[in-house]
Amino acid sequence: MVSVSSGPELLVRNVRPLGGDPVDVLVREGRIAAVGANLGASPSARVEEGDGALLLPGLVEGHTHLDKTMWGLDWYRNDVGPQLIDKIDNERAFREASGHDAGAQSLALARAFLANGTTRLRTHVDVDTQAGLRHLEGVLRTRSALQDVQQIQVVAFPQSGLLGRPGTAELLDRSMAAGADVLGGLDPCAIDGDPVRSLDVLFGIAERHASPIDIHLHEPGAMGAFSLGLILDRAEAHGLQGRVAISHGFCLGEVTQPERDALLARMARLGVVLITSAPASRPVPPLMACRDAGVVVVGGNDGIRDTWTPYGVPDMLERAMLIGLRYNLRRDDELAVALDCVTESGARGCGFADYGLQPGCRADLVLVDAHGVAEAVVARPVRRLVVAGGQVVARDGLMRHQ
Amino acid sequence: MVSVSSGPELLVRNVRPLGGDPVDVLVREGRIAAVGANLGASPSARVEEGDGALLLPGLVEGHTHLDKTMWGLDWYRNDVGPQLIDKIDNERAFREASGHDAGAQSLALARAFLANGTTRLRTHVDVDTQAGLRHLEGVLRTRSALQDVQQIQVVAFPQSGLLGRPGTAELLDRSMAAGADVLGGLDPCAIDGDPVRSLDVLFGIAERHASPIDIHLHEPGAMGAFSLGLILDRAEAHGLQGRVAISHGFCLGEVTQPERDALLARMARLGVVLITSAPASRPVPPLMACRDAGVVVVGGNDGIRDTWTPYGVPDMLERAMLIGLRYNLRRDDELAVALDCVTESGARGCGFADYGLQPGCRADLVLVDAHGVAEAVVARPVRRLVVAGGQVVARDGLMRHQ
Repeated sequence: MVSVSSGPELLVRNVRPLGGDPVDVLVREGRIAAVGANLGASPSARVEEGDGALLLPGLVEGHTHLDKTMWGLDWYRNDVGPQLIDKIDNERAFREASGHDAGAQSLALARAFLANGTTRLRTHVDVDTQAGLRHLEGVLRTRSALQDVQQIQVVAFPQSGLLGRPGTAELLDRSMAAGADVLGGLDPCAIDGDPVRSLDVLFGIAERHASPIDIHLHEPGAMGAFSLGLILDRAEAHGLQGRVAISHGFCLGEVTQPERDALLARMARLGVVLITSAPASRPVPPLMACRDAGVVVVGGNDGIRDTWTPYGVPDMLERAMLIGLRYNLRRDDELAVALDCVTESGARGCGFADYGLQPGCRADLVLVDAHGVAEAVVARPVRRLVVAGGQVVARDGLMRHQ
Repeated sequence: MVSVSSGPELLVRNVRPLGGDPVDVLVREGRIAAVGANLGASPSARVEEGDGALLLPGLVEGHTHLDKTMWGLDWYRNDVGPQLIDKIDNERAFREASGHDAGAQSLALARAFLANGTTRLRTHVDVDTQAGLRHLEGVLRTRSALQDVQQIQVVAFPQSGLLGRPGTAELLDRSMAAGADVLGGLDPCAIDGDPVRSLDVLFGIAERHASPIDIHLHEPGAMGAFSLGLILDRAEAHGLQGRVAISHGFCLGEVTQPERDALLARMARLGVVLITSAPASRPVPPLMACRDAGVVVVGGNDGIRDTWTPYGVPDMLERAMLIGLRYNLRRDDELAVALDCVTESGARGCGFADYGLQPGCRADLVLVDAHGVAEAVVARPVRRLVVAGGQVVARDGLMRHQ
């Protein structure tokens, strides 16, 4: 849980929630106390004038890798090979040689996310037999440092595979004991080569720690659909309804429609969430079909400026735009769906509690100068004001305390 | 031709052309006079300190629609239907009802492009039986107003089809006589319904005016490949080597590889250029296969903030980034290809003369704070300085004369 500030009231005046009529928002003890026209506040209340700005709830990052980033460091020259395993091996070698500091780097990127209004964030952290729990410990320090203003879910993620490097399962076990929130998995066929054993080991660890699961499933077409079926079998057998997420799930954009629809129906029934960065260069799960089937779809950036990819900015409005472009969402009502992936559905899918713009919710508020949600997504305006856990943390895109 | 300023010399000191070693650039009478270390200049020369910034040549926009944009206006609520014809009909109705001012709007967007370093630009302008040449005349005024600092190629474009609304061919004829630079075309099967007659009429107009041609070819798969074949037949028969461009060409991303390679080989032989916005939601021509075959590939935004699409910003570095994302270009050397589409290849494909960073070229210089080309593409930094036709036109992203 995120702690909330006490201190004086905050009154944010004249803002338009999701483009609706102007209201004031009263914040007390870190939560939204009231939303309405012409609210009163105690004489000691701090007042922020919204000037009719668009009000969004705190933005949600559903899938990133804070520990990998080189955000703020010198440019990393990328000449990495094209295969997944090239990127995995290159990264391990780079980290060993460079002494990459996952703690400092995750803090820098998390703060940049916060300056852009991201108040809830799920990050996958590499756990492997070379680095052990070093990256995890660094990111746990970041989670702790920001706990008053940003809720970070830490996924213990076997980036180098679970079975291939003996000792990884034990490291994941220790990671969960050390405070990771979610257990991560990776391509049980393509990387581990033994999908049944890989998933049995993974779900065994999850059961011991009663932890939710988030599995990177890059596997294409029929292979991915096969692995997904095995995952769903185990979600059902272990009683993990509402506790399992599939990240990427590219196969859902490749199999035939009847196969896809059967998988989506099963995912919906088991409350299995789909988390996507909506990459432009790959087949992707069909957003509207997923939602229509009842599958919650969450947006995420994936890695930002690391040895895998030079791309990415810690801005969930830009990710919403890229989701919109990938799915050809042009109408205002469609762009609201793109935003939903990084707000309401993002929070629901990741299980972030007390989320929203209603009284009682944690006071995570983002103000931008935009007509409405659609313009916010396509124009990605500078965040005029960010309130997190009731505190003003950033103004005009810059953190208040640098 | 773009006129060039006389006036005093300009010395841009300490910049790194495309990330190379630091040099000075001397500008005289609107052209690059010299590039080298520690250049001297006349005592009256104006000096700009580059502080080691990355130097890019002026950016090139290969395909946009300045006349359609609502850039700077109130938000346009998009509730348009999904078909191409819905968008075409909606736009014509909207313009009739709103009195949309293509002259003022094209100027606003062209200036915004310039502030972001775009010094050469090809724009398609709607010519139809409802608006006649009104949009064209507006954009020709913009071309004229900016001629000292931005080279604008105007394409007379039959957005509502060439055959369906009698009188359109005559309007295109008059457009070319009125000063349009390029003759535009549109889907001869899907929109005109009579590909042979449509293309014969189009190439007939081009022959009368000795004009280059740029055809929007959205048609998918086999239909598009069929139309493309008919276009190539006519490019060959009319001796239009190096004078024909295909915009979009989605079919090249859908047909079988042997069909595609045969079309690309023929395009290369006839000097037919491909212009793409690299949309994330559609099949696209394979960038590297096009280049390997010898086809010049040019990048463009397509429409920006209009009744067709809410997306888009007048920034060719962002377009280069979207090209990079669409084609999964991650290595530094691959990102240089993305930039090439909006610089060298853009200029070559559109036929913009005197382009580049060599002595003799028109002095179009863009300075950004970035390590190199790859970082410029992914980070899209604010343009620190833009020199166009030898004049300083923008600084820190803002036009010098607002």
